[in-house]
Amino acid sequence: MNAPAAWLRTVRLPPPTLSDNTADVDRLAAALRKELRAEAVAIDLGLQRELPELLRREGFRVRCSLFRDRGRWMVTGIDPADRPAPALGLAVDLGTTRVALRIVDLADGRSLAESAFDNPQIAIGPDVLSRIHTAAEPEGLNQLTTLIREALNAAVADACRRAGGAAGDIRAVAVAGNTAMTHLLLGFNPRWMIREPYIPAVNRPEVLRAADLGLAAGPYARVLLFPNIGSYFGGDLIAGILFAGLHRRDETAILVDVGTNAEVVLGNRDWLIGCAGAAGPALEGGVSRMGMMAAPGVVDRVRIDPDTLRFALHTIQEKPARGICGSGVIDLAAELFRVGMIDRRGKIVPDRCGDRLRLVEGIRHIVVVPAEHSATGRELTIGQPDLDSLVRSKAAMYTILETLALTVGVELKEVATFYVAGTFGCFIDPRSAIAIGMLPDLPLARFVPLGNSSLEGAALVLTSAQALEEIDRIRDRVTYLELNVNQAFMNRFSAAKFIPHTDLARFPSAGTVGPEKNDSLKEEGLP
Amino acid sequence: MNAPAAWLRTVRLPPPTLSDNTADVDRLAAALRKELRAEAVAIDLGLQRELPELLRREGFRVRCSLFRDRGRWMVTGIDPADRPAPALGLAVDLGTTRVALRIVDLADGRSLAESAFDNPQIAIGPDVLSRIHTAAEPEGLNQLTTLIREALNAAVADACRRAGGAAGDIRAVAVAGNTAMTHLLLGFNPRWMIREPYIPAVNRPEVLRAADLGLAAGPYARVLLFPNIGSYFGGDLIAGILFAGLHRRDETAILVDVGTNAEVVLGNRDWLIGCAGAAGPALEGGVSRMGMMAAPGVVDRVRIDPDTLRFALHTIQEKPARGICGSGVIDLAAELFRVGMIDRRGKIVPDRCGDRLRLVEGIRHIVVVPAEHSATGRELTIGQPDLDSLVRSKAAMYTILETLALTVGVELKEVATFYVAGTFGCFIDPRSAIAIGMLPDLPLARFVPLGNSSLEGAALVLTSAQALEEIDRIRDRVTYLELNVNQAFMNRFSAAKFIPHTDLARFPSAGTVGPEKNDSLKEEGLP
Repeated sequence: MNAPAAWLRTVRLPPPTLSDNTADVDRLAAALRKELRAEAVAIDLGLQRELPELLRREGFRVRCSLFRDRGRWMVTGIDPADRPAPALGLAVDLGTTRVALRIVDLADGRSLAESAFDNPQIAIGPDVLSRIHTAAEPEGLNQLTTLIREALNAAVADACRRAGGAAGDIRAVAVAGNTAMTHLLLGFNPRWMIREPYIPAVNRPEVLRAADLGLAAGPYARVLLFPNIGSYFGGDLIAGILFAGLHRRDETAILVDVGTNAEVVLGNRDWLIGCAGAAGPALEGGVSRMGMMAAPGVVDRVRIDPDTLRFALHTIQEKPARGICGSGVIDLAAELFRVGMIDRRGKIVPDRCGDRLRLVEGIRHIVVVPAEHSATGRELTIGQPDLDSLVRSKAAMYTILETLALTVGVELKEVATFYVAGTFGCFIDPRSAIAIGMLPDLPLARFVPLGNSSLEGAALVLTSAQALEEIDRIRDRVTYLELNVNQAFMNRFSAAKFIPHTDLARFPSAGTVGPEKNDSLKEEGLP
Repeated sequence: MNAPAAWLRTVRLPPPTLSDNTADVDRLAAALRKELRAEAVAIDLGLQRELPELLRREGFRVRCSLFRDRGRWMVTGIDPADRPAPALGLAVDLGTTRVALRIVDLADGRSLAESAFDNPQIAIGPDVLSRIHTAAEPEGLNQLTTLIREALNAAVADACRRAGGAAGDIRAVAVAGNTAMTHLLLGFNPRWMIREPYIPAVNRPEVLRAADLGLAAGPYARVLLFPNIGSYFGGDLIAGILFAGLHRRDETAILVDVGTNAEVVLGNRDWLIGCAGAAGPALEGGVSRMGMMAAPGVVDRVRIDPDTLRFALHTIQEKPARGICGSGVIDLAAELFRVGMIDRRGKIVPDRCGDRLRLVEGIRHIVVVPAEHSATGRELTIGQPDLDSLVRSKAAMYTILETLALTVGVELKEVATFYVAGTFGCFIDPRSAIAIGMLPDLPLARFVPLGNSSLEGAALVLTSAQALEEIDRIRDRVTYLELNVNQAFMNRFSAAKFIPHTDLARFPSAGTVGPEKNDSLKEEGLP
């Protein structure tokens, strides 16, 4: 995917003369203001300092990298026009559980490298709430901030190397995270977010210097942190809306983000209503506890023959299996249920599992990949706790969709498009998501899988100067619907904790639609 | 002189509620935008970080200190509204020879302390040109920049202490210097300023963080460096115009700045023409070589009895004499000439000096204060080189005035007001300046002494938000007249190197007007 270089501009300045003796910095700023039709162009002191020599050596032709904060443009680097240094962009999806990033060439928008890692803050706080409590302790905040900054810097350095560059080549950074993760990256204490009336320290951070955030990047690199709408509706979702383009369409569409939280946005170019499932403990942890990011050898598709109970798996790049991603887990659960290896409550049925059943410290597991066929030499299994967690997550997602629809008086079946994002880097198969009752039973054509829409939205900022403006417009337009977790909600949630649902009439296609024929699937262990 | 607190604002924020859940930083920014009618208000990360606790502790009432860069306001500190920390401002006249500074209370504009010191860059380059050459050598620039920053920080720390505060209390800084000194403070190499077509690195610096300039001040303090118009017309003169108010008057007036350079601006609210005497070596060094800044014990007025040749001196605060300031030197020269102790070429007349004559390493000096009456216990003298230098400086000033008037076709005698500034901190007596032929022989009522107009202009920025806008307007309106140092100029210069001039008809009052009666003068040595 190539895009125009939104953040690079080559300018040729008229060389100064006795009758045009504008100073060098002022001359460049004027040329950029004209080129960008901008009112204000800021040039950092260090860049100004080098400018006179550079201009004279290069015959007053330079390529500038830029970034923008609302009306203000900032120069992030100045290079010889003929042989500019690499100018990289960094997009980050700053998840509670997983952090994904992408290195982009600002010259053509090409993705050069991707990477993902577990958020190391998990070690001192598995979920958002526990981290907010930790941040309130002496040194807790500092520790959390240092953990994420250091892990990010290490992953970025590695990804840049793979991209043939270095972190110092990064000129622009876009970070999409939920409100709490954004606060912890900033080093802001999020304590007031969880106390009535639930106020974040900041909703719309200014564009910052990477150095001020302790991020390894070019000396003049700037960082956009996606704005949030409130404590429970973060920048990651704004990035998702941006990528899905919900805010640009006449038709009403829905964006469903299946991450650590269940997040849903409904709307069109005129209005947007969002709702995020920080409604209860069921929504924390969730699917992603065992889901890995997309990477070679990660299982992303599963089919089980109902007669032979043989597993057919697809792994990314068809490498030996070494884990399973979120979409793979949803596929797996749908298939396990279809062939009767788990029941309607998501509980493992030992009699049906045969030699795939394992007891680990008294807890039931199902072997997905036998040790002799896995990349690690160990069995790849899914345990009862993973399945319980998945059932809670899928129930939460469905309940939130149901509640949002009830609240705004829109019938889900009237919605033209369901954009299904997942921060796992794998594309969720709507067929499987419907089969387990995570998504409503609607014609498959209405579902559009998006992958990690938060990362994609962040990456969009690196290739489009327009995107930055849209972000503010999205932010100002979204109404956040506070989930009222009352008895009615909990009743709906309980009813949704069955596969696909207690009310089978809602899922007429359940059991009638077999898995798609898919030649890319192969039986486990086959090369 | 009390002024409204231009840079302080107390705001009371509506406390957040469930229905008004704007984040803390956004809430403060919105209140300030409204209060200031500003489009953009920037709040540094460190201030944002502390804000949530501060707001809640202080019941959402805070006093903000602010500064401004064109359309953009920047918060430089946030304090409890009821017991705010001191908020100081720092004004600096960054001279080639002397640096003067003033500490101001931003709450009421009161001057709390003043200080001055020799520019330590003199040690490695006595004048602008030699410093520009030094800056081109390896480490030269770095050395020059470090020298001035460290000296400034030391003087500021001391002045703040005397003001009952600390450098960390400084929130706003305004620096007026000539183009080269401004570049050296910024750490910018001024090498292209002295090579055709004479281009500075920057004419209109952005408002910077004090920390980025290595200046000791509050962590969020901002610095305005007065913009310059070109290599030979610096921010110090813009500060002078601002203070004199030339740009606001209907009547055409003239501003004469007698500093290291001879600088002249002519104009009114519609037009301004400036001219600065970096025309030749005569203009470097000059009067200020022996002139001290105003300070207790500094001689600022001199009269000599033509009959007895007794000296009557006035010292600042009437303390024992320990030096002489620029205006004192001009007074002294006028009197020495009037009583015949120097001749029309400024040469010492030994026969007339009696026991006031000294030969130091073969060079003639005149004793101004005998050792037994001076504060230092040593004789205070003026030497022939000092007098030669003064004669060159006064000749340059007169020649520049003459040339500017000739060029724009305005007769000096038509100019309603002559603002006479001097960066020495003492007020130049126009009577003496006319007597030596530095200023034209016009009615005394037309001369308005201004003192250090560069420092005063810088201080104005600390007490008026308006002043910042005017600076840009002044800058954009001044036409810089390049002095054409041709044979005609040099002829005029040579003719002006006599006291008062070769053409005595130009100075009809010379010799006819005696010194003003002044009871504050006393004979040297009297208590």
